[in-house]
Amino acid sequence: MSAHESREGIYLDYNATTPVCREARAAMEPFFLGGYGNPSSGYPLGADAKKALVRAREDTARALGASPEEIVFTSCGSESNNLAVKGAALSAPPGRKRVVVSEVEHPSVTNAALFLMELGFAVSFAPVDRRGVLDLDRLAGTVGNDCALVSVMHANNETGVVQPVAEAARIARKHGALFHVDAAQSTGKVPVDAGALGADLLTVVGHKVYAPKGVAALYVRAGTKLTPLLHGGGQEGGLRSGTENVAFASALAAALTAAREKLAYDAPRLSRLRDLLVSALRAEFPDLVLHGEGAERLPNTAFVSFPGVWADALLSRAAGLYASTGAACHHGAGKISHVLSAMGVDKEVARGTVRLSLGRFTTEEECRRAAAILIAARRSL
Amino acid sequence: MSAHESREGIYLDYNATTPVCREARAAMEPFFLGGYGNPSSGYPLGADAKKALVRAREDTARALGASPEEIVFTSCGSESNNLAVKGAALSAPPGRKRVVVSEVEHPSVTNAALFLMELGFAVSFAPVDRRGVLDLDRLAGTVGNDCALVSVMHANNETGVVQPVAEAARIARKHGALFHVDAAQSTGKVPVDAGALGADLLTVVGHKVYAPKGVAALYVRAGTKLTPLLHGGGQEGGLRSGTENVAFASALAAALTAAREKLAYDAPRLSRLRDLLVSALRAEFPDLVLHGEGAERLPNTAFVSFPGVWADALLSRAAGLYASTGAACHHGAGKISHVLSAMGVDKEVARGTVRLSLGRFTTEEECRRAAAILIAARRSL
Repeated sequence: MSAHESREGIYLDYNATTPVCREARAAMEPFFLGGYGNPSSGYPLGADAKKALVRAREDTARALGASPEEIVFTSCGSESNNLAVKGAALSAPPGRKRVVVSEVEHPSVTNAALFLMELGFAVSFAPVDRRGVLDLDRLAGTVGNDCALVSVMHANNETGVVQPVAEAARIARKHGALFHVDAAQSTGKVPVDAGALGADLLTVVGHKVYAPKGVAALYVRAGTKLTPLLHGGGQEGGLRSGTENVAFASALAAALTAAREKLAYDAPRLSRLRDLLVSALRAEFPDLVLHGEGAERLPNTAFVSFPGVWADALLSRAAGLYASTGAACHHGAGKISHVLSAMGVDKEVARGTVRLSLGRFTTEEECRRAAAILIAARRSL
Repeated sequence: MSAHESREGIYLDYNATTPVCREARAAMEPFFLGGYGNPSSGYPLGADAKKALVRAREDTARALGASPEEIVFTSCGSESNNLAVKGAALSAPPGRKRVVVSEVEHPSVTNAALFLMELGFAVSFAPVDRRGVLDLDRLAGTVGNDCALVSVMHANNETGVVQPVAEAARIARKHGALFHVDAAQSTGKVPVDAGALGADLLTVVGHKVYAPKGVAALYVRAGTKLTPLLHGGGQEGGLRSGTENVAFASALAAALTAAREKLAYDAPRLSRLRDLLVSALRAEFPDLVLHGEGAERLPNTAFVSFPGVWADALLSRAAGLYASTGAACHHGAGKISHVLSAMGVDKEVARGTVRLSLGRFTTEEECRRAAAILIAARRSL
């Protein structure tokens, strides 16, 4: 079985997780064989591991427009986000006891911020408009000189909407707050440059960009004060103790490098396939709703609603198609995604929402088949 | 190159890190190929990943004498130790604002405890005797009803001394404190049963037991209250958010299962080879000091001193031997391990200390060659 063949069917859930690309597999393999040294050991076996880690850090930095010493390797996006949010808050000057996050952040940002309330911090939420785009005027009205951190994701995992992060960064900076960007979903799909985005802190996640699950990085702009989450031996410049996962750091670096090289080819190709898929569905169902329409969106994502049905009922009849929903009906009680709620989407529309996210191994034929499967499933309800 | 062949030379630093065993490699490989589903996804590809995670949890639990719901997978030993120490302290009743750790804990325990001082906790240290064994009388005098947690490692990473953890657990329990055991070094070398050790919390680490770097687990006794370090999607029973590293969890489970099966064979074999190595050195240098002598020790570890020389100078002349030191002389200033300091070892002895730690792939021939290399190196100084 090759990397991109799923067990069966058509995989259109690349925003949930990606297969591991061959570049990442090749990069990590030596460390599962003879190259098992601990980078902290001084002898050649350890020095080899350390050299590989240095190289992984350089390559990761290059992919993000950063310097190597600004890269902290972590174990997952949730860890990077928790380190950014808690680390920045706990290192902030005494008068800065508030954190501002957008209403559509990932739970690892929102729940990290809410945890800070137990330590005496306040949390404010910045709203989005009906397309899911951050409302910059309202953000400007929310951020103040009492803020430690503002956190805004680069692109939303559900809608694919790309946020005006550089503008949000200017608002944060004006008030002396640090600015964190969760770039988990945008990396590899649109250009991600920490400097251009105005980020002090920026999260990238391995398993969204064809590296394995279990590795991520946090860009920490030089000079940014951050309290570690993991104390111990002082690895990763003292910001993340723990024996380094050299294999996965190398895989992440290789995956980011490959994604960057392929971006100019992948992005327009996926955008075309995604639009083809949406057009096929719309031709059949003129009432199809495309969430985030009119906003800048990731090239691979279509968050579409079939009004009047439950998305999970629809997907349960779409055998052979792997996708996720923006709402689920469990035991008769409907649960609608917090992103759709924040956008003020009508419940009838929200509950019929399916996320179709394409990736490097998606073919035109798969998109045509996916459209046919969804059309038949919708008709059967 | 097979898993256990190092780049060159004789690897006697298994306490620093181990090669990845074939059982672990075989267990993780499917997830780097077609089995890339996210365990949170409902379709078959995700369900397969979830099933693998359930099985990894069951196997890990079995290896530790625990129930599956008591196992939390983490990214490294430092994370498990930080989660145990900080998580227990932050969940403790208001009157329990002190943490007690032994003087010879790993930095990820000690520094996690010291960080808690910033949040209003006190930290007490429990001393060891000259052999490196925890002083139970003094521990009993230190623990009180104001304690949230007592943390004592099962076996020390430097000396290999096995601590009286079950007795320490009784002292903690008597005062209503939680008890954490860092079993990073003991797992796979001596039997580790969470219940028999009296642990409420117990750390096991992948890369010390022939799984890859980047995975560990924390046993959390059913009913134990713990504040998570990573907030987010609520994975791992809400105690450790983040997309699960199914590949490495499976590798850890396979490695623990293999280690448990091989223990009855490996332990006496390594003990014999270790003693052979020490005897060969002692025959040549009657003043050789074996730290922890007379105490119960791990079968694979010899922490020996060549009095009158610096260990790093000795090892720099021991080409082809990969081992670590208990003291290092940098720029003329000597730094002695905190473990040897806690044991009250004379500086002249401490500075000549080398750790020789054997493992599954160590051969008798390698031990004989290692002895010859060390003897020649010592003579050359």
